[in-house]
Formats: sequence, C-alpha cells, structure tokens
Amino acid sequence: MIEKVRGVKDFYPEDQYGRRKIYGILQNTAQRYGFREVCTPSIENLELITKKSGQAIVDEMYAFKDKGEREICLIPELTPSIVRMFVQRQKELTKPIKWFSLSRHWRYERPQKGRQREFYQFNVDILGPKSPKADFEVIACGIDLLTSLGLKNFQFRISDRNILDSFFKSHNIPSKEAFWIVDKRSKIPKKEFSGKMKEIGVEEEAYAKLEKLLSIHGTVKESLPTIEKEVEHLSGEVEDAIKNLGEVGAFLEYYGFDKYCTIDLSIVRGLAYYTDIVFEVFDRKKSMRSLFGGGRYDNLVSLLGGQKTPAVGFAMGIPMLEIMMKEEGTWPQPDLSPDYFVITIGNVKKTAFELIRHLRNVGTAEYDLSGKNLSNQMGLANTLGAKKVVIVGEKELKQHIITIKDMKTGIQEKMKIEEFYQK
Amino acid sequence: MIEKVRGVKDFYPEDQYGRRKIYGILQNTAQRYGFREVCTPSIENLELITKKSGQAIVDEMYAFKDKGEREICLIPELTPSIVRMFVQRQKELTKPIKWFSLSRHWRYERPQKGRQREFYQFNVDILGPKSPKADFEVIACGIDLLTSLGLKNFQFRISDRNILDSFFKSHNIPSKEAFWIVDKRSKIPKKEFSGKMKEIGVEEEAYAKLEKLLSIHGTVKESLPTIEKEVEHLSGEVEDAIKNLGEVGAFLEYYGFDKYCTIDLSIVRGLAYYTDIVFEVFDRKKSMRSLFGGGRYDNLVSLLGGQKTPAVGFAMGIPMLEIMMKEEGTWPQPDLSPDYFVITIGNVKKTAFELIRHLRNVGTAEYDLSGKNLSNQMGLANTLGAKKVVIVGEKELKQHIITIKDMKTGIQEKMKIEEFYQK
Repeated sequence: MIEKVRGVKDFYPEDQYGRRKIYGILQNTAQRYGFREVCTPSIENLELITKKSGQAIVDEMYAFKDKGEREICLIPELTPSIVRMFVQRQKELTKPIKWFSLSRHWRYERPQKGRQREFYQFNVDILGPKSPKADFEVIACGIDLLTSLGLKNFQFRISDRNILDSFFKSHNIPSKEAFWIVDKRSKIPKKEFSGKMKEIGVEEEAYAKLEKLLSIHGTVKESLPTIEKEVEHLSGEVEDAIKNLGEVGAFLEYYGFDKYCTIDLSIVRGLAYYTDIVFEVFDRKKSMRSLFGGGRYDNLVSLLGGQKTPAVGFAMGIPMLEIMMKEEGTWPQPDLSPDYFVITIGNVKKTAFELIRHLRNVGTAEYDLSGKNLSNQMGLANTLGAKKVVIVGEKELKQHIITIKDMKTGIQEKMKIEEFYQK
Repeated sequence: MIEKVRGVKDFYPEDQYGRRKIYGILQNTAQRYGFREVCTPSIENLELITKKSGQAIVDEMYAFKDKGEREICLIPELTPSIVRMFVQRQKELTKPIKWFSLSRHWRYERPQKGRQREFYQFNVDILGPKSPKADFEVIACGIDLLTSLGLKNFQFRISDRNILDSFFKSHNIPSKEAFWIVDKRSKIPKKEFSGKMKEIGVEEEAYAKLEKLLSIHGTVKESLPTIEKEVEHLSGEVEDAIKNLGEVGAFLEYYGFDKYCTIDLSIVRGLAYYTDIVFEVFDRKKSMRSLFGGGRYDNLVSLLGGQKTPAVGFAMGIPMLEIMMKEEGTWPQPDLSPDYFVITIGNVKKTAFELIRHLRNVGTAEYDLSGKNLSNQMGLANTLGAKKVVIVGEKELKQHIITIKDMKTGIQEKMKIEEFYQK
C-alpha cells in the first residue's frame, strides 16, 4: 500500500462536506463586502517569495528546480502572488482593488494539530487607498467572516506598529530587535521578557513605560487617550497612527463591531513587511490561541516591482477555523443522505430510469448498481440514509402504481406514477 | 517585475467569476447523482503515479525530492490518489463508492491552447460494482454535467476494449501495439494507418474486417447486431462486452440520453489501465476535438495494493470545457457589479456605516474608501457598475431622508431612512 505524503490530509466525503459549506459561506460574505475572487497559480518563481520574506524561508518551503532548471516553489502564502498579479496589470486595473481568494498552500514544517504541510487559507486584500476606511473594511470583513461561520468568542487585538516604533526610537533602542522580543512576549516568562529588553538597552524607567503601554486594553475609544498620555514624544507618525486608529475605532463602533475589538500594542506581527495598522485575532476562550492576523503593508508592491501602492489585508487559515468551529459546535454536520432511493422489483427498468432522471431534476437520487434483491436494496437505502424510498414493482406498475416510503416516519403511500410526476 | 511561472494562469475577477459558477454547477450536478465530494492532497509519493503510468510519465511531471529526500510530485491526474484513498479505508467504506472531486493538476508539457501546465479537472468515479448500471451511471453523469453547462453539441463515443482485443488475438496480432495504432487512427492518414497495421502483422483480409469494425457508428441498439455479425470468434469476453454494452445502451435510451452516444470501436483510450468499457467525448462541431474520456479500470485498485475492486470513471478538464463553452456562448458572463453603492455628503458617517452593514445583509454594498467628493463617488459607483446608489446627505438626513437612485433607469427616489430599512 502506498501511503500519502507526510503532513498532508485526505478529505473523505464526511470531512469535505463541512469544508465545501464553509468555503461557500466565506466566499459569499467576502462578496457582500465587494471583494472579488481571484485565483493564483500554486507554483511561483522562488524569487517572488524570497524577495518578500528573505532567503531563510526556503528551509520551510517546498522549493525545487523544474526541468528547465528554474527555481520554483509551492506557494507558502498568497500575498506575494496577489501583489504580482496586481503589479502585472497595475495600469489597467480599476482602483481600489478588493480581492479575495481561497487557496492551497504548502509549508515544509513539522506537522502538528492545526498545522499541516498542505492547507487552505482565505485571503482578503485591498490595494490602493491608504485610509482608515480601507483598514476598517478589512477588519470588518474579517469579523463578518467569523460571525458568518457562527463564531463569536474571538477578539481582534489591534495596534499600529508606528506607536511602539516611535517609542523605541525615542529611547534609542533598535526597533527591529525590540519588535522581535515584543512578538515573543506572550510566549515567555515576564522575567525573560524584561531581561531581553534590558539586553537591547531598555532601562528601568523606559521599561516601566513600555509595560504600561503594552498593558493598555479596551475599545479603541477608551484606549487612545491613555496611549496619547503615555507616549511622550508624539512624532508625526504616532499622531497619524493615533488619528487613524481613532477613526477605525469610530467606524467599528458605528458598524456595531467594536465589541469584537481591543487595542493591544503588544501586537506587532513578526513579519517585517507590515508598516502601520496590524491586528491579530485570538480565541477568547483560549486567550493564547491566535486564529489569524493581518495588517497594512505599504511597501510590498514597490518591493515586488510595482509603483508604490498602499495595501492592507489578512490571511485566515482554514485548519485553525476548523478546530475552533468544532470546539464551538458550529462546524456543519455532514448531510450526505440522498433525497430519494429507487428500489425495483422485477423488470421495471424503463420506468425506473425515467423516474430516476426525473428525481434528479429535483434532488439527489440513488439506486442499487449491482443487482441486489428487495431487502438488500432496502438495506442500502438505509445505510445511505435515504430520506425517501420509491418502490417500483412489476405488478403494481401494471396499475401505474408506485410506493413511496418516508424513511423517517416509516409511512408508506401508494400513488399513481403520473400523479407523482406532477407533484 | 517578477513574472509568473511559464505555462500557468492568473485568474482575475472577470475570469474567476465564470469558473466559480461552473464549479458550482458541476458539483451540484454530481451531487444529484449521489456522488460525494472528496479532496486529495496535491502532492503524492512519486511511486503512486509511476506504479499506474510507468516511469516515462516522470518526464512530463513536476517531480522532485522533498527535504527528507523523499521522491514526491505534483499530481498530474486524480485517479491514483482516489484509489489510494479508497485502499487506505477499503474495509470501513460503504460500497459502492461514488466520489467526485474538483482538483488542480500539473503537467510539465509544452503550453498550448487548452493545455496549461497547471489546470483543473473534474473527476467522477464509482468503485465497487462491476455492472452495466455502474458504467451507465458514470456516462449519464458525464452527459448531465455537460448539459448542465448548457452544452449539447457533444458525442460520447463508446467502446469496450475486449472487442478489439479479442479480434486482434484471434488474428495473432499483439493487442498492445495494435491499440496504440488504433488510438492514433484519427490523427494520421489512412495509408499510414494501414501501413502500420501491416507492419504488426494485420493481413489484407483481417484489415478489411478491422476497417469494417472501426467504421461501425450509431446508437448502441443499432450497432450491436453489426458488431456481433462482424466479430467471428465470439470469445467469452466479447460476449460479455456486447451484453454489457447492450444493457448500457438500453439504460441510456430509457434515460433519454442515447442521442448523445454512439458506438465507436476505434476508441481504445491510450492508457493501458482501462479494462472494459471506454468512452471519449467529442465536440460534434469539431469532430476531431476530444473533450475528455474515461472508462472501466478494474485492475488499478489491486495494482496499488488494495483488494481487487472494479472501478469506472472519468476526468473532465476544465480548460477544454471553457474553450467549448466560450465558443457556444454558454460561458457565464461576469456580473461583478455591487447591488448598492453608498455615497455620503458631509458628516454622516454613523448613519452611512449602519446603512452599509444593513445592506450587506441583503446583498453586495460598496462605498468610497478614500475621501472622494460627490461627483467622484458617483463616478466610482458607475465604474463599478453599481445597480443602485444610496445617497446619504447631511442636510437631508436631518429630516431622516435618503435618496435612492436606480442606475439602470436613472430614476431617483427620496425616502425616509426608517422606511428604507423596513423594505
């Protein structure tokens, strides 16, 4: 027996059923926000990925040479491909670009719960405007995607990287290293965190201020005054960031979505390419569990060869959604049972096939493919969970009669076949 | 600018729209036949593919080593994965297995019209019963998939490999070579065909008979008597094949699908793994253009390590469907226009966001993300093709009034906002 590749999954009908259902819900929700679906290739030139994420990512990817000795790879995420597609038609495309995509990705990492080597993500991006409305639009769509899946115990933790960046700069601390440590904050003991901060030059007084900043939580409206108070040196970037956050917060409130959001300056998102607003979505019940994240990335388009264009978006991993939905009981129960199962007795093939074709215009219809007797046909109808069984018997058919059995109630009804067709 | 990989396609919203639509139609149609969706990985151990198709296929594939030095590949077709999934749960699964799948495939071949290096296929398979009903079920589903896409100018050319096989055997001709030549018949001049047949030992008399067999066309009912007459040595396999074809033909007739089918013994399907019934679907308008094909493959399950299990199915390539649908004018026209576009004048943000959220419960709603003035907002609504524009103006709003403009008729209507919400 040949096994499947390590770290990938087979989806049998019972698994695929819910998947197909939630894909439809996600696509429909994104469409209602005016996002339009695109589909990118699964293979890209390796350079596209390393240009965004650096060479180190190659170790965590399926990268290989094609027969023309070109370095290509299976895409580990969608953003580079989305930006490439944008850049290739930057002039003709009507701005703003609002795109979504459901796509498969591959990462060569140790398989674990919720982390497979092959997985689906749902991507949402806006390219064009740099505005609080664009930031809001992406966050609101993210919230609606989750609520449309029946989820509500989640929290969007929102920040703007410029606030901490300015704070560290004003204390002459290298932001890159500091961000890297902040990003680890929730995963390491407090002592280790303060130690690491000290190592890169955060003195006691600054550390106390940093702790205060990082501990600010609450709706945007509640939190902003505290932030303004705590950040002494209001650089232009910080003023812009606070103003932008304030507007995003107001829109979220008008829209009725502020209850899903909190300010949290410890959210910096490891990825170096985020430039302004960033957010990460957490499971409220398991506060350490991150569902997905996103933010503004204004430099990627120009980095990948396009004309500088602001952009904001996120990628939602399906495996993590599945885990949470299953815990919350909102994962769709598979309903694979056919509406009808046609049972035949004697030589009634012509009528049976006409009937099956008719039934397939209105629903799912199955029948025995292998020549079973009456009781085994009924057994198969039961096993498949057929909702109704239609029995076509040679004798009854002489009087144009067929029997319909409701498998739930057990009630049998005889009916003229012409009458049945008209129903 | 970083280009995409050669031979793959980007699907922008206008292209993806029709694709998503026809994917939904195909899935729905297969479901009505009782087929259930599965999803396989995109990467498989290379051995799974070569075991079915031989080593030569590696040259036409994306095959590579992963970081654990395992030989893996991007799947060039779905059947091996389907069979692997079946074998891995052969004992637990309720038979018959009726599975469909929409999946992406990769082949390293020269890109040309309708043939990309990355493409989607729609697969339908039945594993379990060896019966004319199973053969019929697959063919009927194939026909309904095409008609559900609005296609009708196609023809299923049906054969059973045992008929020609028996013919060649009775003339001591090696079937494998002979099939290979028959498979090329429609693509080479008649003289070349007869020459090649002579080379492998088909004498004049046998050749005349072969030509007669290959020229039989017509519904199954019409054609079978001629076949029976022409095949002198009715071996057991041929008798079974003719009986099976006869029943499949009768079912197609009862079902009303015989008009889409013809007997054509020149259909052998190159792939060595087909065992009995085979079919290939052609465009009636361009008789040489093959849309897709399939057939019975009773040895693959055991070849891939399972308990011997009959199987029948086909794979339908989306690119070829797209070409035909576009020629026939049945490819879905993209409708990307939002139902509503909300225009704001003055400070009406709160109402506007409430309204947008409301509208998104009933359809697609968009608005300007970047601070445009009234006329530029109207311009964007036009560019996007919005069906209705809702204007929220600061002055009017004091009287709870908003304006709704039907962009098709140009008719403007003023309305109490409370009234609009209730509609």
